[in-house]
This record gives sequence, C-alpha cells and structure tokens, in this order.
Amino acid sequence: MEKSIPHKQTPPEPKNHLIIHQQKGDKIMDKKELAKMIDHTLLKPEATYEQIVKLCKEALEYGFASVCINPCYVNAAYQLLKGSDVKVCTVVGFPLGAAASETKAFEAVQAVNRGACEIDMVINVGYLKSGNYDYVEEDIKDLVHKINGRAIVKVIIETCLLNDKEKIIACKLAEKAGANFVKTSTGFNMAGATSEDVALMYDTVSPNLKVKASGGIRTYEDAIRMINAGASRIGASASVKIINKK
Amino acid sequence: MEKSIPHKQTPPEPKNHLIIHQQKGDKIMDKKELAKMIDHTLLKPEATYEQIVKLCKEALEYGFASVCINPCYVNAAYQLLKGSDVKVCTVVGFPLGAAASETKAFEAVQAVNRGACEIDMVINVGYLKSGNYDYVEEDIKDLVHKINGRAIVKVIIETCLLNDKEKIIACKLAEKAGANFVKTSTGFNMAGATSEDVALMYDTVSPNLKVKASGGIRTYEDAIRMINAGASRIGASASVKIINKK
Repeated sequence: MEKSIPHKQTPPEPKNHLIIHQQKGDKIMDKKELAKMIDHTLLKPEATYEQIVKLCKEALEYGFASVCINPCYVNAAYQLLKGSDVKVCTVVGFPLGAAASETKAFEAVQAVNRGACEIDMVINVGYLKSGNYDYVEEDIKDLVHKINGRAIVKVIIETCLLNDKEKIIACKLAEKAGANFVKTSTGFNMAGATSEDVALMYDTVSPNLKVKASGGIRTYEDAIRMINAGASRIGASASVKIINKK
Repeated sequence: MEKSIPHKQTPPEPKNHLIIHQQKGDKIMDKKELAKMIDHTLLKPEATYEQIVKLCKEALEYGFASVCINPCYVNAAYQLLKGSDVKVCTVVGFPLGAAASETKAFEAVQAVNRGACEIDMVINVGYLKSGNYDYVEEDIKDLVHKINGRAIVKVIIETCLLNDKEKIIACKLAEKAGANFVKTSTGFNMAGATSEDVALMYDTVSPNLKVKASGGIRTYEDAIRMINAGASRIGASASVKIINKK
C-alpha cells in the first residue's frame, strides 16, 4: 500500500492563478515593457481635437500600445500616428452596447477603413440578462465576421453590471464568437476593473484569448495588480502617471 | 406732449418667457394631456426584454407619447405597440455623440426601417468644443437628410457639458441642420435638465423647433417646471410616478 509522504515531496506547483500571476508580476517590469501593454485612452464625449493631438503625442513619446479614442477621431489619430508602432484603437456600440448588431458591425468596418486596427466593442448586456445568448453571440460574431481579420476585437463585458455566472457566460460567448480579447469595463458605468474579475476572466477563456483590464486604473500599483491577475493589456487615461509611477 | 399714463394703460403683454410659460403651466393640466407629452424612457444598458415589454404596456395604459428605448429593442417595441398611438422613439450615437457621422446616419435609418418614428441623436460635443461647427452641423444634417422625413429628429445637446454660449450655438446648428427638436440631456452624464436651460433653448430656437427636457425629471413638479420653461416634451423613466403625482 502506497502512502503519501507529504513532507518529503517537492511542493506542488501552485494551482492558484493569483499566485502564479503574482510570481509573473513580481519580475521587474521596465517602463517600455509596461507602456507596450497600455491603451492610452480618451473617450470623454467633450474631448477636443487638440486633446486627441496631445494624446497621440504622449503615445508616441512613451511608446504605448495604442491610443483608444472615439470613432469620430479615428482618421485624425491615424494621420497623427502613421508610420509609428502606436496603433489606433476605437470603441463600438460604446458605452451601452445596446446598438443594433448591424450598426455595431457597420461602425467597426467604418473604423477599420479609416485606420483603426483594434476594436473594443461592448457586449449586449440587456440580451445577456434576458438569457438570449444566441443574440449576444451573433452580435459579436457578425462584427468579427465583417472585420474579417483586419483588426483585433476586444469584447467589453461590463463586469460591474454582471454577476459571476454572467461574467463567465459573457467570456465564453465572446470566445465562441471569435473575439481576441475580453475586456472588463467601459469606465462609464458604476465601477471599473477589479483584479478578481480579471482573474476570473483569465481563468474562463482559453489561452487563445487575452484579457484587457480597464476602468479606474489610475496608478502604477493598480496596473501591476491587474497584470498579476492575468491582464495582457491595460486601458487607462492616467497612462503617463502610471508609467512615471507618480 | 404726450405723457404715458401707466396706471390707465392695459398692462403690456409679458415679454419674459418664464412668466408666459408660468401662466401656460398654471392651467390645470390633466393626466391625459401630460401623458401625451412624455417619452416613457428606459435606456439602461442592462434593460431586459421583459422590462421593455413592461415599459410598452405602461405606455399603452397611460397613453404616453412614446417609449424611448435603445436601438436593439426597436423592433420588439414596434411589434408590441403596433396599431396604437404610442410611438417608438430611439437614440442614436448615444450617449456620447462621438460616433462617426456615417454610423449615426446608418443607425437612424436602420431604426426607422424597424419602426422608430422619433430619433433622439446626440450632438458631437467634442467637435463643438473644438469650434468645428461645420462638422457638428453636417453630422446632424447628414442624418436628417438620410431619414428623409420618415421620423422626427431631436438633437440632444448635453447641456451639462456646455456653457451658455455653446448651448446657444448648439441649438442654432441643430435648427440650421433641419432638426425638429432640441433636447437637453442624455441622462448619462453629470447632470440632467434644468428649467434655466430649457428656457434658454426655447428662446434660442424658432417656433418651428420644440424643446424636450430630459434627465433627472422624477416628479410631477419637475415635469411642470420644465413645461413652464418651454418644454413640449419630457423624457423620463419615472413617468408613471409623474402622472400619478406620487
């Protein structure tokens, strides 16, 4: 009869993703490396053209992954960033997610035609809450299909409006529909990202999908906490402050 | 030499719109009359199909002017209200107003094709703040043109983000672009309608345009205050409470 001898065994690999990520995150992350994970974001409705210019300049200076802006500024940002590594990211059906599916797909295609190569779309929360999962999946799938690989698609599930069961369903539907990322929040609702939600989303999707944490990420510590929980991308307007650890 | 004898003259017509409206408003407004001025509104992203059904039933019961719902529910509401006097009103570029012009026009046409006959679109606040008035006017005009008279168009100027000068410019641009209404607020930003803003908007536009007050109108007294200030339409989710003077 075999008997386990716990005190002599090699300690098991930690299964808890939080611990794993904590170890990952504990490595020293340099400024450039962190900047490459940040979507430098300005989505306020009152944002002026001048503010978009400033945002793009900062993105070039710090080497952020992208600027995340409203669709009406996609072409302007594209012109300002042309030839650089900084991508143009825009939002679709934002921030309610309650536009018709055709409009979401149309908006995404228009944005891609104008230079966006990352599309952050909002899931249809109402139909999700109504239990109409086919609608929610088709809403994403239709957009993914029409984009036809010309941009990566992040699906914002708006965690603050969902319970854990709904968060898991939303992530699975996004994956089934062909999205590249699941993203926590619009930043326009009651609350933004939490490390618990990021960890849950990270655990739910396959390694083919990444997690973007956004909403309320204002400090370097916030950003690292999200990365430790499994986020590959951070959406923030306080990006310069985050990078400078201020 | 003529001398005015004030105490013998007929009192001049009051020029101050607030007084005029106060007198208008002072007449007793019956339940039906008030209901006919209210867009019964549910725009929360998490609103379920069941809640839309309830909204439509209430609109039929109380005789509200319309239900104001997100685009993804336009067809459902149309089916529920078919054959009644209650209209389907939906929102476009909502609530940021920062979608591309083509998307706004596309979204409006889609909604009209599915049964909406009132379109509440959000002005492009960012371009307004940037001083690009041509863009702001074209953004509205393009939608009005593509709607081609099949629906009335209300332009939400989002008063809480504007100073008085910008409110006046926004109203004039909306009128020039062929809108039927100017509307105060989305209800998704810092503040909603004030009677001062309604009065300013009423004074700015010609008699061809009407004013809709929305955002934060929760009681009968709130509604009457807006009507006294010049509003012809009220957007509210507390419509049943307002009508029942609770």
